[in-house]
Amino acid sequence: MSSDLHVNNKTNKTVLVTGAHGFLGRHVARSFARDGWTVTGLGHGTWDRATADAYGITFWHSADVTLDTLVTYAGKPDVIAHCAGSGSVGFSVEQPHQDFVRTVANTAAVLEYVRLHSRHTVVAYPSSAAVYGNAVRLPIREDALLAPASPYGVHKLMAEQLCRSYAIHSRVAVAIVRYFSIYGEGLQKQLLWDACAKVGRGESSFFGTGEELRDWVHVEDAATLLKTAALNATPACPIVNGGSGSGVMVRDILGELLRALGDATPTFNGTPRPGDPKGYEADIAAATAWGWAPTIAWRDGVRRYATWYAGRKR
Amino acid sequence: MSSDLHVNNKTNKTVLVTGAHGFLGRHVARSFARDGWTVTGLGHGTWDRATADAYGITFWHSADVTLDTLVTYAGKPDVIAHCAGSGSVGFSVEQPHQDFVRTVANTAAVLEYVRLHSRHTVVAYPSSAAVYGNAVRLPIREDALLAPASPYGVHKLMAEQLCRSYAIHSRVAVAIVRYFSIYGEGLQKQLLWDACAKVGRGESSFFGTGEELRDWVHVEDAATLLKTAALNATPACPIVNGGSGSGVMVRDILGELLRALGDATPTFNGTPRPGDPKGYEADIAAATAWGWAPTIAWRDGVRRYATWYAGRKR
Repeated sequence: MSSDLHVNNKTNKTVLVTGAHGFLGRHVARSFARDGWTVTGLGHGTWDRATADAYGITFWHSADVTLDTLVTYAGKPDVIAHCAGSGSVGFSVEQPHQDFVRTVANTAAVLEYVRLHSRHTVVAYPSSAAVYGNAVRLPIREDALLAPASPYGVHKLMAEQLCRSYAIHSRVAVAIVRYFSIYGEGLQKQLLWDACAKVGRGESSFFGTGEELRDWVHVEDAATLLKTAALNATPACPIVNGGSGSGVMVRDILGELLRALGDATPTFNGTPRPGDPKGYEADIAAATAWGWAPTIAWRDGVRRYATWYAGRKR
Repeated sequence: MSSDLHVNNKTNKTVLVTGAHGFLGRHVARSFARDGWTVTGLGHGTWDRATADAYGITFWHSADVTLDTLVTYAGKPDVIAHCAGSGSVGFSVEQPHQDFVRTVANTAAVLEYVRLHSRHTVVAYPSSAAVYGNAVRLPIREDALLAPASPYGVHKLMAEQLCRSYAIHSRVAVAIVRYFSIYGEGLQKQLLWDACAKVGRGESSFFGTGEELRDWVHVEDAATLLKTAALNATPACPIVNGGSGSGVMVRDILGELLRALGDATPTFNGTPRPGDPKGYEADIAAATAWGWAPTIAWRDGVRRYATWYAGRKR
């Protein structure tokens, strides 16, 4: 759980990070690398050597995550951090079958690879608060009703069910983290990115009421949590929420962002977006019981984001 | 819902039955054919012409159920009765990934085929009471807790979730039947088959207490229910139980079977089999509200089974 920037003494431990080119995946890779693990990445995307080094990727294989590619490239690692998967509700509505393949079918392949070829490997799976759908009660506990409201949420839930089934019936060691709103420097989509782009166009009015509650977790904290999950994976398949434990209103986070970018105050058109859940706030007692805790407060994280965004435009 | 043996006047309706060579699939095919539908079968197995005719199969394609084979062979039918899928709890434990592919991945392909290529097609999906796991309360209603106890049950539940997701988010018309214990002449596995084989070896003692409750539905009634489901499929994705509505103890059904086969009375070793659910009994109010009702009482069905088994041995 160290967030030191230096690389610790080398261990003999190995981790395969699927989807290591993605936003969460690359930070997970870096988090393991900093602890001295050897990191193999599998997924789509191209790296220049400097960036791959910066994220601690030693080996990189550009391929779909299938049983075949896992047999060829995974190398029987100590951990598979299975970060590959679709990450967009919108995409899941437009392309549900592709979303199914990217999220559910490749999770099936990872679990089968471990069952057949690498029994000592433990699996850490990043799921999503989307499995809860519209929560009735905040903060959301892990035993809350699961009622996903999009194909994305359904597929994440199905991937969880596969993990649990392999854990129970094939004794594969797994741990699942249900992430709330992951953000951080480098994320080029979702609320903060869109807001920065708007401000760049001189706009400061937004959809919604501004009172929508979201639970923000910085990607570096999210990454250490997935590493912590891997170290706590068992055939009991523990499931923990990954959030800060405190909901923040969209009005407040955009207010902070706009202050950091300049002077504008966000305004809202007052119309709730159809299908947008009203509130997300994680109960993080289970994750903190592992010794993990978020280290980056949302105001600091948002200011870092604004600084990154401004720097990137220069 | 007629169970007449003659073929009614030809309609222009077409149905694709996946897994049409299987036990439920072939009876579903015959049930549609008797109503004058043109039946295309897709799946594995080989037919002689007489048997294919007996089950009303006009066209037969021996292939996996994938998006490619559906595009090639399905022919934009009015109904897809998606009977392909694994049918064995034991297989699902031994080969969970194969079971996933046969049950979940091919259901994803069927739904995507309809979404992309044949929007008017409605889908009827035979699920299983295995999605309930160990039921707390009998009879089991469709809104009971879903806690499958095997990979088979998990995969059936995942297939249901895909159906619901495509119904809600892509407006595909679907209906799901959760079958309890389907049996009937020709079934060469499970309790009645195993018992007949035992009796053939001069044995009449069985595992378990004999008091395990199961809800038996004859395959001909099961087939008319899936046809009824197709006619009631909507984007609301109705889900109904498929059973008789009355649980029968294993002691009673085996007693009837052994009487029909000769004179033996079954005895039981008294040891519950680990993992065997204690009781299954369907609440069938939802299915009967569609006008469907089981027509073959279990004692009659069991005697028919014994007659078939004895005849088959000659």
